Parts: sequence; structure tokens; C-alpha cells
Amino acid sequence: MTTVKPRRLSDRQRLAWLRLIRSDNVGPSSFRQLVSRFGSADAALEALPGLTRRGGATRPLKITSVSEAERELELAERFGVQFIAIGESDYPPLLQQIDHPPPLVAVKGSTDVFKRPGVAIVGARNASLAGIKIARMLATDIGRQGFTIVSGLARGIDTAAHGGSLETGTVAVFAGGLDKPYPNENIPLANAIAEQGGALISEMPLGWSPRAIDFPRRNRLIAGLSYGLVVVEAAQRSGSLISARLAGEQGRLVFAVPGSPLDQRSGGSNGLLKDGATLVTEADDVIRALAPLVGEQVQPPRSWRKEALSDAAVAAIEVDAEQPDDDGRSRVLESLSPVPTDIDEIVRHTQLSTAQVQFVLLELQLAGRIERHSGNAVSLLESGV
Amino acid sequence: MTTVKPRRLSDRQRLAWLRLIRSDNVGPSSFRQLVSRFGSADAALEALPGLTRRGGATRPLKITSVSEAERELELAERFGVQFIAIGESDYPPLLQQIDHPPPLVAVKGSTDVFKRPGVAIVGARNASLAGIKIARMLATDIGRQGFTIVSGLARGIDTAAHGGSLETGTVAVFAGGLDKPYPNENIPLANAIAEQGGALISEMPLGWSPRAIDFPRRNRLIAGLSYGLVVVEAAQRSGSLISARLAGEQGRLVFAVPGSPLDQRSGGSNGLLKDGATLVTEADDVIRALAPLVGEQVQPPRSWRKEALSDAAVAAIEVDAEQPDDDGRSRVLESLSPVPTDIDEIVRHTQLSTAQVQFVLLELQLAGRIERHSGNAVSLLESGV
Repeated sequence: MTTVKPRRLSDRQRLAWLRLIRSDNVGPSSFRQLVSRFGSADAALEALPGLTRRGGATRPLKITSVSEAERELELAERFGVQFIAIGESDYPPLLQQIDHPPPLVAVKGSTDVFKRPGVAIVGARNASLAGIKIARMLATDIGRQGFTIVSGLARGIDTAAHGGSLETGTVAVFAGGLDKPYPNENIPLANAIAEQGGALISEMPLGWSPRAIDFPRRNRLIAGLSYGLVVVEAAQRSGSLISARLAGEQGRLVFAVPGSPLDQRSGGSNGLLKDGATLVTEADDVIRALAPLVGEQVQPPRSWRKEALSDAAVAAIEVDAEQPDDDGRSRVLESLSPVPTDIDEIVRHTQLSTAQVQFVLLELQLAGRIERHSGNAVSLLESGV
Repeated sequence: MTTVKPRRLSDRQRLAWLRLIRSDNVGPSSFRQLVSRFGSADAALEALPGLTRRGGATRPLKITSVSEAERELELAERFGVQFIAIGESDYPPLLQQIDHPPPLVAVKGSTDVFKRPGVAIVGARNASLAGIKIARMLATDIGRQGFTIVSGLARGIDTAAHGGSLETGTVAVFAGGLDKPYPNENIPLANAIAEQGGALISEMPLGWSPRAIDFPRRNRLIAGLSYGLVVVEAAQRSGSLISARLAGEQGRLVFAVPGSPLDQRSGGSNGLLKDGATLVTEADDVIRALAPLVGEQVQPPRSWRKEALSDAAVAAIEVDAEQPDDDGRSRVLESLSPVPTDIDEIVRHTQLSTAQVQFVLLELQLAGRIERHSGNAVSLLESGV
């Protein structure tokens, strides 16, 4: 009977969402599990200390306070940044479909740009002049066909991709807070994007300076915002190849621009072509391949639509039923090792229900003792042993 | 009972073969039909005047005389060139498998080079330095893996391909006579190929200076001598693309080296990649793809093995049985038009046997009134109406 489906979070809800996602050891996946199990971010915040204690945390979990979250909201207002929750109408539709979508995104600029289908264009920072020319040309031509160009504001190819689509609309995905553009030389470009109908977007807190580890995480959003990802120039073992792999895993089409085998800056893009990426020499190659996909209606996964925006409390009895006893907890812990183990295997091995195993894993994750991997696997963190 | 299968043509047979293939309007396809129907090249030469008359030739067919053929044989001996007939043990095995293999090839150098699997490397005459470097590198590396490198002696990529494989063995396919290397600047290269264990090969008469029209015909031999064809640099609408198309039609693998979309010299090769050619950045890409093919035993088509080297006369009565009356001839002629028509359709339409229709078409072809097309089709030549 709790089928209330607000289109927007209330201010109180948004504050609770921000507190929860900004708390230690809470990521998109555990955020979703918590809201789903406890019925609201508020209820999850209350449950957090108990969960991490049972998970065996060695020190208390840092839970973001009301005043800290209010400070970030104030900062956002000052910078013209809004927080959009998954399920709200302005949330980028394609992004809802990835495995672990951020529950809240910070956006500066126009959200209209998310309504048009996205194409990511990424590549080397030390790109050749030819590569930069091609990236700019592709961005302009694909943009004029009604697509939003998504990239990462980096030097080289990314800069050219944004520059070529400033007029038609482009999205820059940040690895840090939206008040911390990187690199500095692209601050004017970032401002131009937000002012000319495009958008800056990030899942990281305002004030957060991006570290190396934040870029692969950011790259999953670049791929997630796009139907296809075009790699223009990329050396072997480069960040653009990580983006391409993430795009492939998310079911996005991967495109690459060919280059001479003697040019190391094309080693990665030629490698993608060998592995089956679609070869691109002009915008039409991309547009033709995406045409069959773009028509489809993009919907958030059903479970999010039902749960995410509902703030009704789930009966405590239900939650309790999912909690195994201490013996069950030990069995789950014993089945884990530093080598990633499939969760289904843990269920079989412990003879607990899937819900019970997931509950224990959530506690362990919040306690910072396990790491989640793609393909439904988890491993014990060495520091957590 | 006439199952004599000589391994080599007699001198008398070789002279007759040379006369027949050098006669007007006789190509590989009609040569084979004639020898097959009349039992020997000698018998076919005798039948030629009658066939062309019935085919409606407006002037007598030029039949190469004994002395003309002897002159070419003498010229060949002086230049160290031998004529090898299809079915003889030195004839390039792969070449026997193409649709219309030349019945006689002129070869200078070592025929051992045909015993090893061939890989063609072709491309632009006005190649970039990078393209030349890549062609040379591929030729050297693929050659060292036991392959013969086949190319066309042209400037640019072809020259680099031969140069890179001089030591391991390379084959240059000429569009004109073997005494007419083209271009002149590559005469030293041609000599080096023949002297260092490679071979020069052509189906054209000694003394023949190549015309533009001869190159596509030559390109079918380059593809025919090779398991796969690698296009290194090729502009759109270039000869290398014709070679690639012919290679594909003959069931050979097509490879292409990628290049920048801004470099017009890579327009054709990138286009091949879009159409499904295998992308090549190093020799292993070619060798790995060819590995499953190279093991197989290469055999000439069964019919050639049975017929080509048999000089026994076929009973005249059999030949007569295939000759339709004049009414049948008219019906075949009426069913033809300048638009290519499928031969099976002509058979249905005229209600003649396939053998009878083929016989009339042979007469018309020898009379220079029809043209054969790929896919078993023929069309009336406008000058022949």
C-alpha cells in the first residue's frame, strides 16, 4: 500500500541521501542496498553504526553529519550546482542503466543536454595535431546530428571533443568536485560548456580534488552517459582503453579511429579495432551504427523506480528476517579470501539464503573489510583480515 | 581407355598450346573449352576457322602460326624464361584454383618459390615513407615465417614488399612480357628477384609492353598466387582495391593496414577495414589468420587434371552431338543483349542443352561478338551486333 512515487525528493530526503552517499564505505551499490532494506536513507543512516559493528569494523564508521551535508548543499548553491537523485526526471536516463549508477549526481549547466542521446569521444592527452583535428571534426558532425558529446575535460582529444560540440551541447564528466576542474588550463572551457547549454557532472563531493584513482571511476560515468564511445588516439595501456573496456561491459558500442602502426599513439585504438571495435573515419560511421539503438525508450531499472524514491519505512520484521545469526556470519566470513569469490558460490557453501549472504556482505563492506568486483564477486581486503 | 597422364607436355604440345593461347579471342576460359571439346590444342587449332565462321566473325580470326610461336619460344630461351602449363608439376599450385587460370605461364627464376604459401603485399605507388617502412617490415617478417611474398613490381609499396623479401623469396607478377619490366627503374630489382631464388611470372607474350588495361588482369594473378592479400596504403578507387576485390572473389583473405583518416593514401585501406578486411599492424596478424588455410593440400580442379594434359582425340561424333543446328544458333543469339544474361537462363529460354548453348557461346566468343562476365553471364558486344 506504500505506492507513493514522488517525482522529486523532499529537501529532507535530499539531505539524508547526501549524508548517506558521503559516509565512509558507502558506495552506489551499498547505498542502494541500504535504502532498499531500510526503506529510506534516514532509516539507513540510523542503522549504519549497528551494521558496521557487526561487520567487524576496527574503528567507528565516519557518518557524514547533517551540518557537513548542509555545508555541501550551500557550496553547491553558491556554485550554481544542483544535486539530482536517481529516479528524478532530470537524472541522465542512460546513466540509470549501468550496473551501479550514482544515487546522486552534481550537475552544473543545463540538464536538457541529457535528454539527447550521448556519444563519448575520448583519447590521448598528448594527441597528435591530426588526432585533435579528427576529434573536433567528429564532435561537430555528430553533435549537429542531434547527439550530446560526452568527454572528460582532459588535454588533447577530450578538449577537442568538447570544443567541437560547444554549440550543439556537450557534457564534461569530472573526476573530482565540480568546483575543482582539472586541468586548470581548461577552467575557461568548463565555464563555456556550462554557459552554452552543456553540462558539467560529477558524483564526487564539492571540494574534492581528483586523485589518479578517481579517473577510472569517472570513466565509467563517461561510458554510462553514452550510447557509444569513440576512441580517437590511445596508446596501449592507456586510460582511454579502460573507458573502452567499461563501455563494452556496459553494453555500449565501442568505436575507434585507425592510425598508422608506426604511431604509438594509435597502438591502443588499432588494438581495439582488432578486438572488434567499429572503425570510424567520419561521423556517419558512428551515427549509422547507433541509429537502431537511439530510438528505444530509456527507462530506469524497475526496482529503482519502485524503491529509490519511496521513503516509506519497510517493516522492521522483514529486515530482521534477513539477518543471519552469528554462526551464519562466521560461515560467510570463512568462505571469503583475498581472491574474488562468486557470491552464488558463497550462498551454496554457507547454505544461507541469498538475502542473508547479501546482508552479511553489506555489513562487511560498510566495515571496510571486503571489496566488490565486477561479475558478482567479492574479496577480503588484506587490511581487514 | 585414354587415361594417359603425362607429367609434362611434349615439345609439340607446348608449341600448340602457345599457338592456341596466343590466337585472337582465345582466353583462358575459351582455351579450356576448346582443349576439352576437341581433345588437344592441335585439334582445336584446326577447328578454329570453322568455329569463328559459324560464330559470325566479320573478318578471319588471327591464328598464331607455328613460326610465330617458335619465335616466342626462342626468345624465351634467350631470356632464361620457361613456359609452364597448367597441370605440370612446376605450375603454381594455388593459381590452378582460380576461376580462369592461365593455361601457360612464363616464368623466370626458381619455381621452388611457388611451393611455399604465398602472401601478396600491394599498395600505393605514391606511398608515404611510413607505408614503405611498414610494407618492408611485413614482407621481411612474413617471409621469414616461410611464406613467399607476391607483388607487382610497381613503385612504392610493391617495391618495398619485394625488397623486404629478396632473401626469403619473392614473386613479381608482370602485366606485360617478362622481357618488359615496368617501371624501368625496377629492372635491377627484377633481376635481383630472379637471381636470388625468387621468380618473375606473366601470362602475357614476351615482347608485350603493358597497357593500362593489362594491370587489372595481372592483379587477378597476384591474388591467385596468394592465400591472402595485404593492402598497405591505397587511396579510394585505386588499383590495389581492385586486387583486394579480386582476392575476395577468389576466396582469398583480405588484409589492410590502417592509417589516419586525414591521410588520403589510407582512404582505400580504411575502407577495406570497414568492409571486413582483417586489420594488420604486424606480421603475426597475417600469419595467425592464414595458419588454418596453409596446411591444406592444394590440388588442381579435377577436370583440368583429367583433360588438360591428355592429347588423345575426342571422338568427332561426340563433338558433333554438341553442335546445334542453325535454328538453335539463332535462338541463342536472340536471347543475348548488351546487358549480361545468365547462361542458365539462355538454356531455359532456348530449350537447348547446356553443352549446345556453351558451344554456340564459344563460337560467338571466338568471333569476338560476346563478352563473358563473372557469375556465369555473357553479353553481346556492341560492335558485334
